Amino acid sequence: MTAYDRLAARFARIATVGEASAVLGWDSAAMMPPGGAAARGDQLAVLAGLAHGLLTAPEAARDLAAAEADGAGDDPWRQANLRLMRHAHTRATAVPADLVEAQARANAACEKVWREARRTKDFPAVAPALAEVVNLTRQHADALAPALGLSPYDALMDGFQRGIGAADVAPVFDAYLAFLADALPRAEELQASRPPPERPAGPFAAEAQEALCRRLSAAAGLEPEHSRLDRSAHPFCGGTPTDVRITTRYREDDFAQSLLGVLHETGHALYERGLPADFARQPVGEAAGMAAHESQSLIVEMQACRSDAFLSALGPLLLESFGGDPAPYATQNLAAMWRRVERGFIRVDADEMTYPAHVILRFRLEQALLSGDLAVADLPGAWNDGLRDLLGIVPADDAQGCLQDIHWYDGAFGYFPSYTLGAMAAAQLMAAARREVAGLDEALAAADLRPLVAWLRANVHARGSLLGFNDLLRAATGKPLDPADFTAHLTARYLE
Amino acid sequence: MTAYDRLAARFARIATVGEASAVLGWDSAAMMPPGGAAARGDQLAVLAGLAHGLLTAPEAARDLAAAEADGAGDDPWRQANLRLMRHAHTRATAVPADLVEAQARANAACEKVWREARRTKDFPAVAPALAEVVNLTRQHADALAPALGLSPYDALMDGFQRGIGAADVAPVFDAYLAFLADALPRAEELQASRPPPERPAGPFAAEAQEALCRRLSAAAGLEPEHSRLDRSAHPFCGGTPTDVRITTRYREDDFAQSLLGVLHETGHALYERGLPADFARQPVGEAAGMAAHESQSLIVEMQACRSDAFLSALGPLLLESFGGDPAPYATQNLAAMWRRVERGFIRVDADEMTYPAHVILRFRLEQALLSGDLAVADLPGAWNDGLRDLLGIVPADDAQGCLQDIHWYDGAFGYFPSYTLGAMAAAQLMAAARREVAGLDEALAAADLRPLVAWLRANVHARGSLLGFNDLLRAATGKPLDPADFTAHLTARYLE
Repeated sequence: MTAYDRLAARFARIATVGEASAVLGWDSAAMMPPGGAAARGDQLAVLAGLAHGLLTAPEAARDLAAAEADGAGDDPWRQANLRLMRHAHTRATAVPADLVEAQARANAACEKVWREARRTKDFPAVAPALAEVVNLTRQHADALAPALGLSPYDALMDGFQRGIGAADVAPVFDAYLAFLADALPRAEELQASRPPPERPAGPFAAEAQEALCRRLSAAAGLEPEHSRLDRSAHPFCGGTPTDVRITTRYREDDFAQSLLGVLHETGHALYERGLPADFARQPVGEAAGMAAHESQSLIVEMQACRSDAFLSALGPLLLESFGGDPAPYATQNLAAMWRRVERGFIRVDADEMTYPAHVILRFRLEQALLSGDLAVADLPGAWNDGLRDLLGIVPADDAQGCLQDIHWYDGAFGYFPSYTLGAMAAAQLMAAARREVAGLDEALAAADLRPLVAWLRANVHARGSLLGFNDLLRAATGKPLDPADFTAHLTARYLE
Repeated sequence: MTAYDRLAARFARIATVGEASAVLGWDSAAMMPPGGAAARGDQLAVLAGLAHGLLTAPEAARDLAAAEADGAGDDPWRQANLRLMRHAHTRATAVPADLVEAQARANAACEKVWREARRTKDFPAVAPALAEVVNLTRQHADALAPALGLSPYDALMDGFQRGIGAADVAPVFDAYLAFLADALPRAEELQASRPPPERPAGPFAAEAQEALCRRLSAAAGLEPEHSRLDRSAHPFCGGTPTDVRITTRYREDDFAQSLLGVLHETGHALYERGLPADFARQPVGEAAGMAAHESQSLIVEMQACRSDAFLSALGPLLLESFGGDPAPYATQNLAAMWRRVERGFIRVDADEMTYPAHVILRFRLEQALLSGDLAVADLPGAWNDGLRDLLGIVPADDAQGCLQDIHWYDGAFGYFPSYTLGAMAAAQLMAAARREVAGLDEALAAADLRPLVAWLRANVHARGSLLGFNDLLRAATGKPLDPADFTAHLTARYLE
């Protein structure tokens, strides 16, 4: 057995423990009775510790050095796999174990205080806990940075989307803000000139919503023998590549949340299903990062399923599912409902044009928090000033402002940019698919996502982590990330 | 940190990995889409390997020796815990790893062939695979025996019910057969002299069955915040002590299977819920073995819930749930339906009087298989001869005979006696509870199992594995296993 083969076996075990944790994580959200929570936390912590132990064992370091000395041969997949093994090992060994433990405790404690602080709109109540999280995250970033040869903030970003740093993102975001300053008022003006959409009258039975969600998800190619759809308080896609599990929630007064949510999660799920089976449980066989993942959910939900073509097929399905007055299910009415711009306070409710502004605000603030340029105590003011600058609105309280997202309070810094990089990549991939896939719009007009998904499978899913984010886009679309496709999409959809 | 404390931390990690495996095992049966099966097998194997590695690590042996040299202090719980740690370590280290692996492969292969062989009633098709399983099991038993100071067969029995061997069981079983030879014809005669029971007319909606199952399970004290009830092909109780998960299946033409099955699994679940929280995840905090566990399911299902008192309360609940003609729900009719003796071929369908005969047949045959006195090829003939001797009937084919149970084909030898030991212990515990719990029958007549369960909690559940099977019975009932309570129960129920 070569050193590379031993490493491949080790990483397969690590990934298999990760699969067990993923199923337990899904169970926590979708199935577990509340009394199981404490034990579940222990189970996940022990599994994480065992996986970390496998990754940081002395034998892993020896095999890495030996395999790098041998070279991984001519196969670019094996070469990339070995590089990614080294990268994972570097990330795992660069940070002292006691810091990781201190972060786990501080993040859990802060998240708990945050839930109450958000409820009571009381930022000062959580400020000390957040300050500790920021302090430990800074130490974590400082430990990672030299090992990765990155700036501290980029070392955090690298944990979510490898190879993308602040210098890649900042100019793209600045250019977007210039676009937005012009586009948003024009889109609002155009929207105001048209009649408001007619809302379909509910209630919409949860069972009928669920049946339609299953039908659309299966029609997109998600096989029932390899997936589940369940309910949870917060929709997500979890599980493993051969057993993907998506969740949603049903509001009987509004089917849009479950329907569009399940289509979004189906995009994530199809990515996992399409990963290269030959490299299952190897680093190179994993999804290419959070921005890449978000591109796959958004190309399904935002690009394909909110298109005129798809909406024209969806309307009759909605009428069949829910009955009642057919008028609200007309294509142009669905478009008016689900393609509206609105300056709002809440990121997760934002439309696709203003969403990047929410991300850019957080991208700027989290860098300032970590560098020390912004004190935690000054976060609410900086948030409100920033949102006024970007969207011209100021939240009435911090629950609508800097308390709205769990991310920072749970120690996730450097994640937010992935959402907007994903949205931009989705537009770029859709533009390429439109050029390359004959009959794409005709298929969408029959609610058939399979031609699009087949193209994504070949050009994105099946490539796993062989390529970095920009190289993946180059291979699929002929160019690295180019936000022009996103602004062109928004222009066509909201300004014409 | 003392050696004992280090061991306690190690065993807590091992148990926590076991909890993760238990939830994944439940998921496999109750939730997993079929396409996830292969990956799930890997996940469970990797977790088992990690747990085994923690148990057999050199540090564990060193700490065990040091803790034994120190002594575990005056606390009998700590003393018992240390003894049980040694016992687990001895079992884990006595068998070579390559034999364990060969068994895992052979058992899995044989079980697969068995499923098809049972379907096609073709014992010769599975005989070679079973011969390999028997051969490896024999090697396993031979490796365990000297380490435990037991005979090879007793070393296998010890894996299911510690401290009970063939010499304890054989005379009890022989005496039972003497009882049965007299009692069974008399019970049949008495039964034949009475009118046959009237079967309630279905269909019985699965939702109504499930609602009643939940109601009865909760009324027995199983808290919804620490449990789930789901569906699976084969009912079982799984999960963890703070998150117990029971399953059943619903037949719309017969509610008895789900109802009595859920009461049975509720007995198992209540045992897990009642284990001593102070020793959670320690060997001494676990249930006392498979026979002890079966005593808890059977005292609920067979002793309490098939009593006249409970049936008198259940009848009105059944009528409320399913409606229709009230006559079949009269106490005496329910008793006639659910307390019938019948010489049958299938163990899991057997009544409580003939069930031990099925177990005794297997107990004898598995010893003969392992000793080599019985060749695998001769199993069908020996089975049929044995069943004729015991019950006077001969199965028409091997699917009704030696192919019916999964146990041997999956490598489980030494397990069967636990079922009957559990039935006997259940009768003995019920007799003691009747003496000690005031108002027990009045509570049962109100479908209230809580007084019985409170007594079981104090006298069985809360003792964990502090005592062996006979000592546990002695502490709870004043005597070690005494089958006289079981035969007295059968006499009262079937011969009077």
